[in-house]
Amino acid sequence: MNHTIETILDHRSVRKFKDIPLEEETVEMLVRAAQAASTSSFVQAYTIIGIEDPVKKRKLADLAGGQPYVEKNGYFFLFCADYHRHEELLRTRDTDINVSTESTEGFMVAVIDAALAAQNMAVAAESSGLGICYIGGIRNKLPEVDALIETPDYVLPLFGMAVGYPEKREGIKPRLPLEAVFHKNQYSKDKAALSEAYQAYDEIIKAYYQNRSSASKSMTWTDQMQALLERSKRQYMKTFVQSKQLDRH
Amino acid sequence: MNHTIETILDHRSVRKFKDIPLEEETVEMLVRAAQAASTSSFVQAYTIIGIEDPVKKRKLADLAGGQPYVEKNGYFFLFCADYHRHEELLRTRDTDINVSTESTEGFMVAVIDAALAAQNMAVAAESSGLGICYIGGIRNKLPEVDALIETPDYVLPLFGMAVGYPEKREGIKPRLPLEAVFHKNQYSKDKAALSEAYQAYDEIIKAYYQNRSSASKSMTWTDQMQALLERSKRQYMKTFVQSKQLDRH
Repeated sequence: MNHTIETILDHRSVRKFKDIPLEEETVEMLVRAAQAASTSSFVQAYTIIGIEDPVKKRKLADLAGGQPYVEKNGYFFLFCADYHRHEELLRTRDTDINVSTESTEGFMVAVIDAALAAQNMAVAAESSGLGICYIGGIRNKLPEVDALIETPDYVLPLFGMAVGYPEKREGIKPRLPLEAVFHKNQYSKDKAALSEAYQAYDEIIKAYYQNRSSASKSMTWTDQMQALLERSKRQYMKTFVQSKQLDRH
Repeated sequence: MNHTIETILDHRSVRKFKDIPLEEETVEMLVRAAQAASTSSFVQAYTIIGIEDPVKKRKLADLAGGQPYVEKNGYFFLFCADYHRHEELLRTRDTDINVSTESTEGFMVAVIDAALAAQNMAVAAESSGLGICYIGGIRNKLPEVDALIETPDYVLPLFGMAVGYPEKREGIKPRLPLEAVFHKNQYSKDKAALSEAYQAYDEIIKAYYQNRSSASKSMTWTDQMQALLERSKRQYMKTFVQSKQLDRH
């Protein structure tokens, strides 16, 4: 196993950073690493916004649900799906690209492009001794986030990433058993084997939460998923995404 | 710059692989690397399907538009958004999670989760001397792909990844200028600067395609985007995604 794979397997989210801002060169290196990811048909349908203004960072931390590490970190990036540049560039030509930019297929391409770029950045950061935390919480109040960073049509903020020097590292959370996530040749129909894997995993996660030093609790993965998924959350999303001209047809 | 970042910046898609199958341990290591990625609220809303059956690989290569590297590689992975396991696990409890699994927000979470996992796998593979190519072409005929691997409701194949020992490596394609993709504190309103960056980039891409040894052509990035985006493509996607119970409300 090489160092890169060790880095990847050693991932855990960092939610407490030292008060050391990232150097400009480090920020640029991280963006270049993000850009090096694959992109569907070379479309590069994303934009990364670096939030440096402390007032905006504090506002964003509030909007994300009061997560202090959105404000206190080495740097904060916001990843957006983006077809605005394509619309702008092609506006002067006698053509119409809405057939692609406003479709569900186009939306999927932009979301995947942005996520591939982000994960490259995450690995690059962690390989340099930095810690990261994805911030899905910015989707709690996207219209306000959108207003804060003034995104035009065809741009949708997807998630943030806090990066910085770790003050505190959590333990690694055990993932689903490999055989539950990795099937061969077809989606597995072996319900007994899957059920067994989930039951074993529930015990692993229960033990993980019980033994965890901070925020110890007694909860299986199934319990956690129930609490997460039965709750109505961000139901405005479809309307909002479509108001940005994405995922419309 | 460390080795991991060098690996990331050295990425290029590989479309011609040596006829050497990946070892079982390598395949498992790649899946574990994928699983180590961040996942929204620990939901792990994806499944990876390894296509080993040569008949299915050939069929998939046809469905993806006759790309030979879908059939000829060291291994082929298919990444799917997946809430089926959550639905199955929680079916026996007195709860209803459709509010999350069928929403646009839930769809975005699953697509992002799958993409983060895939990019971890891509970096892990490349760090081991393997080459990779994402295969969006499987979305050309998703109903047929879906039938081939028998995915149930709440599962949507998103893209494939061919992995293997490179027979031939292409050059690195230059990405958009950093300042076009990376804005500070707000979405850039400096249209003059952006326009200049795109013009400079168009010249770089034109030169890149002209000097390329294989499939040399004269085309700017803007030309390429026009040809790509003005074409009606995969317009069945919204209906199909919703028929899988995703992105419905």
